[in-house]
Amino acid sequence: MTAKHRGRRDFLRKGAAFAGLAAGAASSPGAGLFAADSPALNPNDLHAYGQRSSFEKDVRVGQIAMWPIVPGVQRDYGFRTPLQDSLGIITPASLHFIISHGHEPPDIDPHEHRLMIHGMVDRPLIFTLDEIKRLPSVSRLHFVECHGNSAAAGPTGDPRKLPTATVQETHGLTSCSIWTGVPLSLLLGQVGVQKRASWIVAEGTEEGKHSKSIPLEKAMDDCLIAYGQNGEALRPEQGYPLRLLVPGWQGINNVKWLRRIYVVDEPYMAMMESTKYPSPRLDGKSRWFESEMGPKSVITRPSGGQRLAQRGFYEITGLAWSGGGAVRRVEVSVDGGRTWKDARLQQPIAPKAHTRFGFDWTWSGEESVLQSRCTDDKGQVQPTIAELAKFWGVGMDYFRMPPTTADMGNFNAIQPWKISRDGSVTNALL
Amino acid sequence: MTAKHRGRRDFLRKGAAFAGLAAGAASSPGAGLFAADSPALNPNDLHAYGQRSSFEKDVRVGQIAMWPIVPGVQRDYGFRTPLQDSLGIITPASLHFIISHGHEPPDIDPHEHRLMIHGMVDRPLIFTLDEIKRLPSVSRLHFVECHGNSAAAGPTGDPRKLPTATVQETHGLTSCSIWTGVPLSLLLGQVGVQKRASWIVAEGTEEGKHSKSIPLEKAMDDCLIAYGQNGEALRPEQGYPLRLLVPGWQGINNVKWLRRIYVVDEPYMAMMESTKYPSPRLDGKSRWFESEMGPKSVITRPSGGQRLAQRGFYEITGLAWSGGGAVRRVEVSVDGGRTWKDARLQQPIAPKAHTRFGFDWTWSGEESVLQSRCTDDKGQVQPTIAELAKFWGVGMDYFRMPPTTADMGNFNAIQPWKISRDGSVTNALL
Repeated sequence: MTAKHRGRRDFLRKGAAFAGLAAGAASSPGAGLFAADSPALNPNDLHAYGQRSSFEKDVRVGQIAMWPIVPGVQRDYGFRTPLQDSLGIITPASLHFIISHGHEPPDIDPHEHRLMIHGMVDRPLIFTLDEIKRLPSVSRLHFVECHGNSAAAGPTGDPRKLPTATVQETHGLTSCSIWTGVPLSLLLGQVGVQKRASWIVAEGTEEGKHSKSIPLEKAMDDCLIAYGQNGEALRPEQGYPLRLLVPGWQGINNVKWLRRIYVVDEPYMAMMESTKYPSPRLDGKSRWFESEMGPKSVITRPSGGQRLAQRGFYEITGLAWSGGGAVRRVEVSVDGGRTWKDARLQQPIAPKAHTRFGFDWTWSGEESVLQSRCTDDKGQVQPTIAELAKFWGVGMDYFRMPPTTADMGNFNAIQPWKISRDGSVTNALL
Repeated sequence: MTAKHRGRRDFLRKGAAFAGLAAGAASSPGAGLFAADSPALNPNDLHAYGQRSSFEKDVRVGQIAMWPIVPGVQRDYGFRTPLQDSLGIITPASLHFIISHGHEPPDIDPHEHRLMIHGMVDRPLIFTLDEIKRLPSVSRLHFVECHGNSAAAGPTGDPRKLPTATVQETHGLTSCSIWTGVPLSLLLGQVGVQKRASWIVAEGTEEGKHSKSIPLEKAMDDCLIAYGQNGEALRPEQGYPLRLLVPGWQGINNVKWLRRIYVVDEPYMAMMESTKYPSPRLDGKSRWFESEMGPKSVITRPSGGQRLAQRGFYEITGLAWSGGGAVRRVEVSVDGGRTWKDARLQQPIAPKAHTRFGFDWTWSGEESVLQSRCTDDKGQVQPTIAELAKFWGVGMDYFRMPPTTADMGNFNAIQPWKISRDGSVTNALL
């Protein structure tokens, strides 16, 4: 936020419940809360801040592409998490997926950053990061998933490439972190939301100023203003120094580099929610303001592109999650869906978070098709692709369309992996 | 493990319960289980593997020192976690504390690494990393803490430096991660431990070959053979590619770069357990094979070296943990221990893991002394330093001795931080 914006604090009234907060900063806007000792080591020393082994090669894969709607202006960043080697339920911050519409992550000085909450409120307020960090904090385990994750036609939009797709390519637009911050409801309580208000619009700091409308009911429920990710500050690609967390909802809601929350009485039809994100259908209609991600799971090991070196014992393992709540059950089939058995679920099982499952299996050397199926604590069951087609009233050809023609957002079909006799693993979805 | 050692597999018999395991590798020792696709991006690209913001400066602090007992041969690495900015309960792998006796972390090729389990067993076995990863995995949240953490005399052994010590300096030798691996009991079940066996000796791969005796009862209880840390491979400084996890016990038990488990019928009095780690007392006696870490807590914010910029509302926050089990209760005192009130505990609360607490406080601007007190689910209560002195039968002067004279291992006294009227925070322990 620029000096011009900071000037507004002069006419903003202050909340009273947290005495001293959002007040002192007016006289010393850049002052940190704590003046900690300077570190003694060169931060480039690996003893100071470590790196992984040089033998570890997993990386995010993806691309930076010009965005077709506004050529030459907007760019899409899409980089996918290497789920094939994921362990447990935490995604390392360095490997968290990246979707970003518009430019590089801004290089924000946290001492200069501000969050303004205004609109239909009694006491509009501007918060420094230090002020937010003085408030009662929470840490919560939540996945963030792009609504375009695992689109049937694959990341390239070219169904011919599907059989060789890895789980990173098919499902790598979901990641899970422990997010630390303050409940948005606490900040909204401070500013005093007026009775007629029914939505908020959250706005980022990046050049494109991504904005997203979110119903006030969700904002007051479980949304977080997050400054921490897996025990340290957010990474630049995940919104440093401040982001919105909208648990269980499409990734696009989780506004990064958050600088403003505008309390309003209707959705504002911001750029992304009015252009790219209302999933178009073949009949020319669109599905607007889909939000909650359905129950979903995928086997991460063994998965596409891997190869079983020999017959014998393998733990089949993978991830399950649901925007509707906690994962209650994961079943695994090793015979193409004819029979299903319960998988083990690892603790902790948190609402709207990745849950790790495991299933003991001895490979006979014969062709096998492995699948997993998630049931959440609402009782929602992950569908097959055929069930999904029936639900949306489309034919199977719909799923073979490139995403620019038809966009099956929130695609959560059961993912089958075929094990061939030579041990190779391929995508058997379509 | 060298080629010389690998030759031993020729005369080792194999386990049967997990068909195919630890067998095929004999014919192709370097072969990976899965032949995954090569990544498409340069791994140095920040889109491939991200880094933190350049504004984030926290580092481990510490030193590499010659070890006095064997001059010129052994070195101590001691690097402490910056707890003052810790968020939630996970320590980022890049900031996990490092204690290592002897040389740099070895640069181990995971395809060449082996774990041998032998001694008083029916079927000695050698496992490749890929074979271990095929077994049913678990992920568990556990702290690792050096038994020398928070020694009263401080990290330098110079009590004169105590008042200005930060929480990184006083308590930075504890960290908490989600560790992924297989239960040691599962591997011991495979080799068939003989009836007379009562201890194991775990040995590392580093040049010093750190070894540690651990009772078989603990080995069969909750120990892990871990290959993952916070969702990715172990970091080199934390034992890549394989380490032992001995939950709740002194850090020295958690053998890194694990290559061998020797099943025996007595403790082997290995170098560290017979020289540096039996805490010497002033009367010339020592305390041997202390293992379980007691109930402990520390306020991380505000803490030593920080400064409150103004009066008003602050959340007091910190970490609590116990080697005896889960944290049941944390109390906070803001008046030097006269009165105590319950703090909030954040979920998840896992056994033998850091637990985050929070406590609402409004600073009046007067001098205050802040303390926290942990109670674990065994009912054990964190003592004051005076109670600890009474328990061990020593005077308060004992705590002012440099660690080379007297070594109060497992020091878990309540840590007081004094807030002065100018907002500065200092160590008020002694």
